[in-house]
Amino acid sequence: MIEANNSNLTSWIKVKADSDFPIQNLPFGIYREGSDSPKAATIIGDQVVNLDALQKLGFFSKMDLPSGIFAHTTLNGFIALGKPLTNAVRNRLSEIFRDGNAELRDNQEAKEAVLIDSDAVEMLMPVRVGDYTDFYSSEQHATNVGTMFRDPDNALLPNWKHIPVGYHGRASSIVVSGTDVTRPKGQTMEPEANKPSFGPTKRLDFELEMAFITGKVNELGDSISTDQADEYIFGFALFNDWSARDVQKWEYVPLGPFLAKNFASSVSPWIVTMEALEPFRTAGPVQDPEVLPYLKYSGDSHFDINLEVFIQPEGADETCVTRTNFKHMYWNVRQQLAHHTVNGCNINVGDMYASGTISGPTPDSYGSMLELAWKGTKPLLMPDGTERKFIHDGDRVSIRGYAERDSVRIGFGEVTNKIKPAK
Amino acid sequence: MIEANNSNLTSWIKVKADSDFPIQNLPFGIYREGSDSPKAATIIGDQVVNLDALQKLGFFSKMDLPSGIFAHTTLNGFIALGKPLTNAVRNRLSEIFRDGNAELRDNQEAKEAVLIDSDAVEMLMPVRVGDYTDFYSSEQHATNVGTMFRDPDNALLPNWKHIPVGYHGRASSIVVSGTDVTRPKGQTMEPEANKPSFGPTKRLDFELEMAFITGKVNELGDSISTDQADEYIFGFALFNDWSARDVQKWEYVPLGPFLAKNFASSVSPWIVTMEALEPFRTAGPVQDPEVLPYLKYSGDSHFDINLEVFIQPEGADETCVTRTNFKHMYWNVRQQLAHHTVNGCNINVGDMYASGTISGPTPDSYGSMLELAWKGTKPLLMPDGTERKFIHDGDRVSIRGYAERDSVRIGFGEVTNKIKPAK
Repeated sequence: MIEANNSNLTSWIKVKADSDFPIQNLPFGIYREGSDSPKAATIIGDQVVNLDALQKLGFFSKMDLPSGIFAHTTLNGFIALGKPLTNAVRNRLSEIFRDGNAELRDNQEAKEAVLIDSDAVEMLMPVRVGDYTDFYSSEQHATNVGTMFRDPDNALLPNWKHIPVGYHGRASSIVVSGTDVTRPKGQTMEPEANKPSFGPTKRLDFELEMAFITGKVNELGDSISTDQADEYIFGFALFNDWSARDVQKWEYVPLGPFLAKNFASSVSPWIVTMEALEPFRTAGPVQDPEVLPYLKYSGDSHFDINLEVFIQPEGADETCVTRTNFKHMYWNVRQQLAHHTVNGCNINVGDMYASGTISGPTPDSYGSMLELAWKGTKPLLMPDGTERKFIHDGDRVSIRGYAERDSVRIGFGEVTNKIKPAK
Repeated sequence: MIEANNSNLTSWIKVKADSDFPIQNLPFGIYREGSDSPKAATIIGDQVVNLDALQKLGFFSKMDLPSGIFAHTTLNGFIALGKPLTNAVRNRLSEIFRDGNAELRDNQEAKEAVLIDSDAVEMLMPVRVGDYTDFYSSEQHATNVGTMFRDPDNALLPNWKHIPVGYHGRASSIVVSGTDVTRPKGQTMEPEANKPSFGPTKRLDFELEMAFITGKVNELGDSISTDQADEYIFGFALFNDWSARDVQKWEYVPLGPFLAKNFASSVSPWIVTMEALEPFRTAGPVQDPEVLPYLKYSGDSHFDINLEVFIQPEGADETCVTRTNFKHMYWNVRQQLAHHTVNGCNINVGDMYASGTISGPTPDSYGSMLELAWKGTKPLLMPDGTERKFIHDGDRVSIRGYAERDSVRIGFGEVTNKIKPAK
């Protein structure tokens, strides 16, 4: 067991019972306070911890950390140090902020340099994403989409249970939570039309996903096995794979989604380490038919993480539109990374890999409006009396997630974005 | 007319008649000599020009260039200066190396610091690629593939003449010419089999493509029109979109190619500027049906560039397997960039956009083995008596290209790679 995950630990920083960020979490992110330059941080309760200040004050002096490693605009350099060091930092943070440790607690001046109210900071993109891959790994989601758009009797395509299907997405347009998303324009083919039309998408959708971020490089030509995958996975975040369904439908055959997705994807700002999630490992579904040897894995490789999506119409209260769980994935992250590199594809620090829409087994646990409102045939009622088939201008969509066990809640915060009308 | 393109210019550096790099070209690249750090360069004839040395010697002193701008490992910083400056550098190079200009020619010491035999240097990746997009813009290629794999009577899909179809590719595995390519392993479904198998691809293929590289950033949410596209396009290179056809066939429905492509793509080391290619603009095909307004364009937007592919079996002579031309594209680069950004997708300096396989109208001008050997039914004969349906281990594949007019040849050099057996 990882000592920093010990459920008996408490911090001398006050942490509310429903906080996503108890001392067992200690995620990493990048923040900016006013006009100061960006800094790396962790968070406990509602206190953002300036890691650069901690380092300058000598709190990491027993570790071999490069000076200024927390003063960059992204976490890439820190993550690239490797798990022995990044885990040592997390363990040291657990020690510094633990109840009974006075070294920072009783140093008022140092505390003022290190702790900032989370309300006072702006969270930035945590990493510079080199490449971004989106998988399609929820059986329920693939089945729902196949049922709606192809053949209900053969909803899953022949390759789906043999391959963790994935495709490359756009890295440049991944934005951090809080960034407004502009409704994209695009080309669509209306039913019965004989030529395409152009305009703002009429079917803007979210996709509830989780993303993992890699922290270690393989050489081009080398593969990463399912057993090695954990070494390469630094952590996880919430991910919204924004989609324009009408654009997607017209463009995606034969080479896959392009403009229907690359106008924006959004990610939560705190990367929760794989180590913090160890207590929440769980078994995945039995995979039948048997997968090829390179996709076999040992040990619990799924994670029990509760996920929710909220829609807040302009000027109204938000409402929860779906509740699901990351454990519902058919393919797990070890399999995804092994598949991605089995041909020798090289990965880099900061690369992002989204799960694909996470849909649970029941209609109230689907991970997109397309599925929740079943292609527009079952609109969702909002608290202000309006209906939603897809997402409206002015709507705010928020994905939240947390794992919970032994009264310890390891949360991800949220990825929240408001929709601006098309330009 | 751009003075640097003047066909009457000659250089005091001796340039052979069939050289790709007369004084009218002046492409940009990154080289390394021995253990020295990488530097930016241009090339005239067989002389690589160390731009960092030129700058240190004061040859750009009348320009507002940041010091050390040519001493980076990629051209991104230089390109990001913008066309007014990068074009001024090209014009200044034209001046320095022009016949009759003695300022460098007669300074032996300076000349020794600036000029290096091209044989003595290693060419590196010219840019750090943020995102990479592959288009599918040759009508003949799309028709050939549709005929082979779908329906000869409806070879082109309904969206093809309305959309410059494209998809995201892997940036991390783009390698420079000269890098060996390892045959990838992957999952395939053999005909008549009831379960997939795994092993080295049996259908390794090249795709003859050209790539453009962007040099200017748009904000997320903003679009670039066909009229504005030239401002954003820095230059062009030869591109080989290596493909594993058996892997592709099994994986690509419904989200597009993934492991069939991301094991490697390769690019020629010299970026030929859009300005150097101005004299080779030519009209494209009539587009029928009429395209949507955002895809309309004015002026000659295609380029007349001769393209060839050579295969050299291990220990044998090389042979030319196809001759085609970049002008055969249905969709041009202005349309591709306008389409890519019409939804507000943001582009960055150094991003790469490949054309898709460039197939000409006749069977000897197709741009891939898949088409040349027609799915293996018409093997190509090599000079050593062996046959090729696809690419063998030990084969060297080289793409070369050049534009020519008024006895001026603006060449791209080559992208050449040798195939290593699967690991």
